[in-house]
Amino acid sequence: MTLPRIGITLGDPGGIGPEVTLRALSQRDALPRANYILFGTRKLIRETLQSLGLSMDIPAISRIVPSDIPPISLWEIQTSLEVLSRGIASEENGEASFRFFAEAIKKARASAIDAIVTAPISKRSWSLAGIPYPGHTEYLSQMYPQAIMTFWSEKIKVALFSHHISLKTALERIKTKNLQEFFLILHQSLVQARKKNIQFLVSGLNPHAGEEGLMGTEERDEILPAIESARGEGMSIQGPYPPDIVFRKAYGYPNKMVIALYHDQGLIAFKMVAFDEGVNVTLGLPFVRTSPDHGTGFDIAGQGKANPKSMTEAIKLAIELSS
Amino acid sequence: MTLPRIGITLGDPGGIGPEVTLRALSQRDALPRANYILFGTRKLIRETLQSLGLSMDIPAISRIVPSDIPPISLWEIQTSLEVLSRGIASEENGEASFRFFAEAIKKARASAIDAIVTAPISKRSWSLAGIPYPGHTEYLSQMYPQAIMTFWSEKIKVALFSHHISLKTALERIKTKNLQEFFLILHQSLVQARKKNIQFLVSGLNPHAGEEGLMGTEERDEILPAIESARGEGMSIQGPYPPDIVFRKAYGYPNKMVIALYHDQGLIAFKMVAFDEGVNVTLGLPFVRTSPDHGTGFDIAGQGKANPKSMTEAIKLAIELSS
Repeated sequence: MTLPRIGITLGDPGGIGPEVTLRALSQRDALPRANYILFGTRKLIRETLQSLGLSMDIPAISRIVPSDIPPISLWEIQTSLEVLSRGIASEENGEASFRFFAEAIKKARASAIDAIVTAPISKRSWSLAGIPYPGHTEYLSQMYPQAIMTFWSEKIKVALFSHHISLKTALERIKTKNLQEFFLILHQSLVQARKKNIQFLVSGLNPHAGEEGLMGTEERDEILPAIESARGEGMSIQGPYPPDIVFRKAYGYPNKMVIALYHDQGLIAFKMVAFDEGVNVTLGLPFVRTSPDHGTGFDIAGQGKANPKSMTEAIKLAIELSS
Repeated sequence: MTLPRIGITLGDPGGIGPEVTLRALSQRDALPRANYILFGTRKLIRETLQSLGLSMDIPAISRIVPSDIPPISLWEIQTSLEVLSRGIASEENGEASFRFFAEAIKKARASAIDAIVTAPISKRSWSLAGIPYPGHTEYLSQMYPQAIMTFWSEKIKVALFSHHISLKTALERIKTKNLQEFFLILHQSLVQARKKNIQFLVSGLNPHAGEEGLMGTEERDEILPAIESARGEGMSIQGPYPPDIVFRKAYGYPNKMVIALYHDQGLIAFKMVAFDEGVNVTLGLPFVRTSPDHGTGFDIAGQGKANPKSMTEAIKLAIELSS
């Protein structure tokens, strides 16, 4: 049996990404057996291990052969990163973190790795380096327009029907046809990840889910027909429920996932109960991608304070969904 | 010193309203001294006390004279309520609960009482009785168009810029002029309630509060100008913050209140952390009105199971804000 090959991109070199990655990997008992392949630079790993007082054997590799790679290895990326500037955004940090990510995506597309875990990048660093994407998700969405953002924690799971667009545009997208497509892709991705038994709860759009058309008609005209059609295709899917109730209905049930109709509907609920401990999972790709649900933490970078919990969970979930 | 006069409407006779009211009042040590005036019927009070195994002296009064009323008294309402139907909506329940409420409002408008606490009514009962309002709030909004719905708990406080309208209509209301008016009325009501030191945090509308116009322009064009103008008027008000962050910023700070731009933005956050334990406060009226943040509980009515905590908090807050 070959072990799952999990690529981990180190994120912005000035942030907490390298720290939480190495800290998580140093606690090997907490992680399943896998081949971990880091996308970064030797220098960044050496300096991070030093600052954490850790010692780990991370040989560089130049080919990813399942039967012949060490437990943790480095896929070294060439960058112009000479001096490490910790705690701030910089052009060098932006270029390096983009290259770590782009190279890992290339390997995943070529099926050389099974999943990617991405440590946080800095939007500002990417912008300083002239990278034309605000973040990981936009890069993936441009390559895979059907990519779906989901958020997982032990308490609650949420999928976003739309994400980084204005609320007005998000409203215009709420059409039966778009919802049908979305439900189907979400369902298929989860079946592929061997999560067949997820029950979906769809949120409404309007207060009290429209209250029989009194406060909005999208529930009746657009959302309900899409749910019924998805149920006809064999999905376990219910709703639309009042938006201020649906998240409570799923809270504490590991097999339930709420489908939120726009970015903040889902993320207000998620962040109220799973702040900084959730895992972001991109579905609808030909490979699994997870990331910890926190930012670069520039204010605490390099101080050894960063909590690796969310990174550990992101790694575990990547393995669970890909192997 | 005269005591505050607190009117309490018993709500739907078939729901848990009468129970939680009498249970809360029976624990007098948990409540401040006040004159409590119940709006209901003798029969309803007698049967509820019996079913709870409680004994309380609640004389009927026909005039509300501050110096001459008992600690708890009854302002008896004439209704056609002959047989009590517990656990279901009915025309009689609807008519009775509407009359309790309408009479209490009349007394508050005439300054005969200082505040009203309303036990839950059933929308369905009101509809069966032909009452042309879905609930308390709509009745108050029609009389006082500037009425503001706010939600209070120890963990978080939220004010809603709009409530029972479709999300599309809510978006159209987000104009600098409307926001300026709202901020001012909210501020003035809280100053009047001797809550001068509340700091307001305004939520944005779009993901990441628009991210400098990339995902929506309402923050820059409509919301920020209104905040700056309110600050110019002496309000302590900040924002707009990303909607999925602003509630975390206020969480656990008793002096902070989030201004949510639409119903579910505020109530998703509130209900995730203060489910069934919050208090609904209507501001912008010439008197204070509070109510427990739960429904009629038809499924448990008459069984003595209903928890009076939210009612107790609603009574305490009515006294705090009115005296």
